[in-house]
Amino acid sequence: MFEEREGRFARRPDLLAIEEPLELRIAGLPSDRPRVLTVTMRTPGHDFELAAGWLLAEGIVAGPGEIRSVRYCQDPVLDAEQRYNVVTVELSPAAGAALGRRGAITPRLTATSSSCGVCGSSSIASILERSRPDRGAGRHEALPAPGSARFAYREVLTWPERLRDAQAGFSATGGLHAAGLVGRSGRLLVVREDVGRHNAVDKVVGWALQQADRQQGLGLPLSGCGLVVSGRTSFEIVQKAMAAGIDIVASVSAASSLAARLADEAGITLVGFLRAGGAVVYAHPERLVLE
Amino acid sequence: MFEEREGRFARRPDLLAIEEPLELRIAGLPSDRPRVLTVTMRTPGHDFELAAGWLLAEGIVAGPGEIRSVRYCQDPVLDAEQRYNVVTVELSPAAGAALGRRGAITPRLTATSSSCGVCGSSSIASILERSRPDRGAGRHEALPAPGSARFAYREVLTWPERLRDAQAGFSATGGLHAAGLVGRSGRLLVVREDVGRHNAVDKVVGWALQQADRQQGLGLPLSGCGLVVSGRTSFEIVQKAMAAGIDIVASVSAASSLAARLADEAGITLVGFLRAGGAVVYAHPERLVLE
Repeated sequence: MFEEREGRFARRPDLLAIEEPLELRIAGLPSDRPRVLTVTMRTPGHDFELAAGWLLAEGIVAGPGEIRSVRYCQDPVLDAEQRYNVVTVELSPAAGAALGRRGAITPRLTATSSSCGVCGSSSIASILERSRPDRGAGRHEALPAPGSARFAYREVLTWPERLRDAQAGFSATGGLHAAGLVGRSGRLLVVREDVGRHNAVDKVVGWALQQADRQQGLGLPLSGCGLVVSGRTSFEIVQKAMAAGIDIVASVSAASSLAARLADEAGITLVGFLRAGGAVVYAHPERLVLE
Repeated sequence: MFEEREGRFARRPDLLAIEEPLELRIAGLPSDRPRVLTVTMRTPGHDFELAAGWLLAEGIVAGPGEIRSVRYCQDPVLDAEQRYNVVTVELSPAAGAALGRRGAITPRLTATSSSCGVCGSSSIASILERSRPDRGAGRHEALPAPGSARFAYREVLTWPERLRDAQAGFSATGGLHAAGLVGRSGRLLVVREDVGRHNAVDKVVGWALQQADRQQGLGLPLSGCGLVVSGRTSFEIVQKAMAAGIDIVASVSAASSLAARLADEAGITLVGFLRAGGAVVYAHPERLVLE
């Protein structure tokens, strides 16, 4: 990169936030052929978490038991750099068969449009419908009803600062979003960064999914846990939190109308514009304890 | 929304940035059946511009002459709210036939993965390849080679402030991204806002496409024009600017590694962290004139 110095542009070294495409494939379907699900631009690192979290958010898996393995591509046609941009998630035989029975893997958003029209209400209805415990056969782990956890408001106001302190990449590049998971103890359990805000959330949720798999006692649903994000809160962010069973989403910035509506209907506490001195609560303030 | 007041959460009115799904359909293909191309979350308003800009960025149309009409859905099954969330772009007969001959409409990102592996280099190669003037039959308007325009550096430094002054929605909600097009005269021609940064860029480019269509003398390619965006600059933002033939992209925030690489290879000047006192130039400083 270049900077103006004494009347001309001089080259100087810089650290940029890395952005690279990631292709996500799914294997273990009855058809036996891996299928490309999506290609997303992301910051490399924690790719297996990203893949697992994305699949949970999309409703393709419901828990760690449904994932048999996650691996980078071994395709000999690809060179080393390319191999690390292709991740294949192999479903467990039961999950693969169940997914096969359900038919096509319908992406979240387009699924709302065919039967019931396209609007915020139908998007919310579709997400709520999909997260009902009885939503499909072969699912061993139902998504949770909203929890009864309470959070100290003054404590929640400190989350963005704690997230920022843990953002190694942002300090270096100024170009990364972050998401963090606050555990039931109030401790910031994990922070992930990415050029895409939604990717950072997928990585955090995928981390939790993997922890659960390793029986470290975290476990899905993440009721009693909070999600803190560095940017604005969109519908998609709340939807991802909901899929993971998270009770509260907090952000330093604004929430959109549809994010607030989904949080309200899903029983998620949504807080924005967090500062040391106060915040805006978009939905379910009853879960926040003032002292 | 709620705010803490005297030890409890009191409800108060608030303006939120509106987020609603938009389904984009294409008509005028030889098959004669409208096809759903994408569903995106966006802020309603300027939807026809969003649709036209998106199609240009995806390489599905190359100029205004290829679009016959853009309209909201008339499907009687949908209610009024839903109809305004479905936009159909009808191609001109020649463009529809040409697209039909080219075969499947391959989304930009997944197109990179099948033949040449998934990585930043292949993403860039694919974008550059597609934007070559001879890229397809039936195209009457080739995408431009990078222009020879020059921009006064001190002037470019004022763009974010001028963008912010024009951001009506942000002042009200704090939750909207913005993009603006700076014309060859140095005037800020148009500003569009959206919950999605990439949507704001599509709206701006779509506006220019429509202006060209109305023979107001703007015209694609937008060489000599600049794009200013409120947030970070990703690969996708640079790619959209490139599809429109824009010479310079400026942002108040950081650019990603792949955005900088694409700008470098495509001959686009990329500037970030714009402040009154200075900026970071990621690519092609030679187009910036210091006095």
